[in-house]
Amino acid sequence: MTASFDRPPRLPSGFRCASVHCGLKPKDPDLALFLADRPGSAAGLFTRNHFPGAPIVQGREQMVSGRLQGVIVNAGISNVATGSRGLADARTMREVAARAVEIDPELMLVGSTGVIGRPLPMDRVEAGIRKLPERLGDDPLEGARGIMTTDRVPKAFSMVVGESRVTVVGKGAGMIAPNLATMLVYFFTDAEVDPKSLDGILRRSAEESFQLLSVDTDTSTSDMVVALASGRAGPVEHGALEEAFRSLSLQMAEAVGRDGEGATKLLRIEVAGAADAVEARRIARAIAESPLVKTMAYGRDPNVGRILMAVGKCVECRVVPERVRAQVQGVEVIREGVRVDFDESRVRELLGRDEVEIQVSLDVGEGEGRAIGCDLTEGYIEENTAYASS
Amino acid sequence: MTASFDRPPRLPSGFRCASVHCGLKPKDPDLALFLADRPGSAAGLFTRNHFPGAPIVQGREQMVSGRLQGVIVNAGISNVATGSRGLADARTMREVAARAVEIDPELMLVGSTGVIGRPLPMDRVEAGIRKLPERLGDDPLEGARGIMTTDRVPKAFSMVVGESRVTVVGKGAGMIAPNLATMLVYFFTDAEVDPKSLDGILRRSAEESFQLLSVDTDTSTSDMVVALASGRAGPVEHGALEEAFRSLSLQMAEAVGRDGEGATKLLRIEVAGAADAVEARRIARAIAESPLVKTMAYGRDPNVGRILMAVGKCVECRVVPERVRAQVQGVEVIREGVRVDFDESRVRELLGRDEVEIQVSLDVGEGEGRAIGCDLTEGYIEENTAYASS
Repeated sequence: MTASFDRPPRLPSGFRCASVHCGLKPKDPDLALFLADRPGSAAGLFTRNHFPGAPIVQGREQMVSGRLQGVIVNAGISNVATGSRGLADARTMREVAARAVEIDPELMLVGSTGVIGRPLPMDRVEAGIRKLPERLGDDPLEGARGIMTTDRVPKAFSMVVGESRVTVVGKGAGMIAPNLATMLVYFFTDAEVDPKSLDGILRRSAEESFQLLSVDTDTSTSDMVVALASGRAGPVEHGALEEAFRSLSLQMAEAVGRDGEGATKLLRIEVAGAADAVEARRIARAIAESPLVKTMAYGRDPNVGRILMAVGKCVECRVVPERVRAQVQGVEVIREGVRVDFDESRVRELLGRDEVEIQVSLDVGEGEGRAIGCDLTEGYIEENTAYASS
Repeated sequence: MTASFDRPPRLPSGFRCASVHCGLKPKDPDLALFLADRPGSAAGLFTRNHFPGAPIVQGREQMVSGRLQGVIVNAGISNVATGSRGLADARTMREVAARAVEIDPELMLVGSTGVIGRPLPMDRVEAGIRKLPERLGDDPLEGARGIMTTDRVPKAFSMVVGESRVTVVGKGAGMIAPNLATMLVYFFTDAEVDPKSLDGILRRSAEESFQLLSVDTDTSTSDMVVALASGRAGPVEHGALEEAFRSLSLQMAEAVGRDGEGATKLLRIEVAGAADAVEARRIARAIAESPLVKTMAYGRDPNVGRILMAVGKCVECRVVPERVRAQVQGVEVIREGVRVDFDESRVRELLGRDEVEIQVSLDVGEGEGRAIGCDLTEGYIEENTAYASS
């Protein structure tokens, strides 16, 4: 992929967005609208958690048509575990937003993120929605700001593909683990592409990005990855479009990992030589999710035996200890299953970088797999001890 | 079980133990010896991690005979990922310890716990072992002190069964997750029992205690649960003996959970009405291991939606959201899959206790399962960011 990201990110032609503070969070924007100038193809991946939020239930049904024109999202309250009232509230959000911009409610997707189990104060939400149309503009970061929860930075990236542009806007910081969609992520493009092709492109892109990401092993009840292609810019070569989706997905997944609650570092784990790809990915994830590996990265501590521990705890995977090798930041630290006498001060220094790469080779097969994670710090604890109360 | 624990704990007749500082840790005791006055039946469970330490490899072989008379354990360095040198060191530890107390080396079990991947300074270990025989005494807490790593308190419990006594000595704080043995735990009894019966008693006791315990999802490379029955006090009714093993196992597992790295609270999770016992236990474990549930307990924060999230992330288990109920400290917080309007200040107050109980009912079958865990605090991060260096 030689195409590069726009700096700053831009929305595709015909797309606009806006955000506003409606009172779900103390003062930051907590409501965002994204809108295309015409209905287009749509595809979506939704959380596999057994307790999907009302917007997930509603969105899954809507997605059957393969068509969307807008997305309305609130942050602060997730509308999960709210029963029939929650479903009615999601429907109202959809209808009020659709009416405000004069489109068919079936073309407006709802997303909600935030605390679980509390009802939405619909008067505030409805008042906020009515303020959005007059604020619509062309900065995707403005929309991204309206969907942040514990995110430290708004997240949007875009790139040009032929005559069209693909833009991804997302949020995510905690309660993130692989199992289909793992946060709120929206792709917008003015490219023309049928819903089925868009679905395939989205799924394959998520498979090598969002599905590799774990901040804290916890699978959210609210998460969705949705794509909307308006077609305004005409057809585009599918291979190039998929390349753009893949690049943007990985960029977004890494941005979420980097912004994991309390995180100071992104972790990239690569496992090679596993029995198969499934085992490679499982082992990579075990390393990325191990609290002891995560705190090792945070502490810049070359306590590399923890990597072996994490590989070894995958008891159902094929591992021959004497064949295992590992590198941290490119420095060999384990050979034949035994700690190498490496330069500890050098590795300690390299662990100071804001990206930590761990490579493990098992030498029992051809399976390769990756995982994306972050370190575990006091910040995660602080962030999560009084979330409902704050 | 009406029998009660001895306070303070005592060793069975004919057993003695000692600990000493040999220089693996900065100043605390780091070497312990436990010795019976005669060879006896033995049984053991060992970690399933793919990278077992040298003492695990050696111990598994020894256990085939079903006979032991003593245990020598060091803390500070785990002798894991140390290759052939590590195996030679474990053999030397066994031989030097056996010679010091004049028993057959095949009857001396070695245990090691601590940092992974560093060689044991055998001169210090050997000098330490030679000091142990003259210090042998009858206080099990003295031996327990010599095997502590990040433990805050030494752990030993005992109870009387007929004419005999059963004593358990253990250590564990971090790198603890279910998969056979999950820490160093030694049972000593003067009861007479054959190795096969002892093995069954030990396995069934571990199944309902150590196998339910997860401090941080990480499975240690060093862990063992071993029982040694000298027979000095003669035969004992097996049912009563097993009851004692079960009570002591649960007491020890909860003591380890309570002493989890940085922990301020013990978590007890009970799941009922699951499709089967396997799913019940899996869901209980998902709740006990969820970083968001753990921080909720630490923060005394009635953010109970996180319990639903943790149940819901078990995508492979049967869950019907509308049937799910949950209680926290006996207060109903979830009914029909929806958050109940409960007294938040009351639950906040109850979460201030040092034991947090969460009960979940799924109402889809008869499966019951439990898990034991602890909260997640800044203390865990502090403990694990510079362990190798400290």
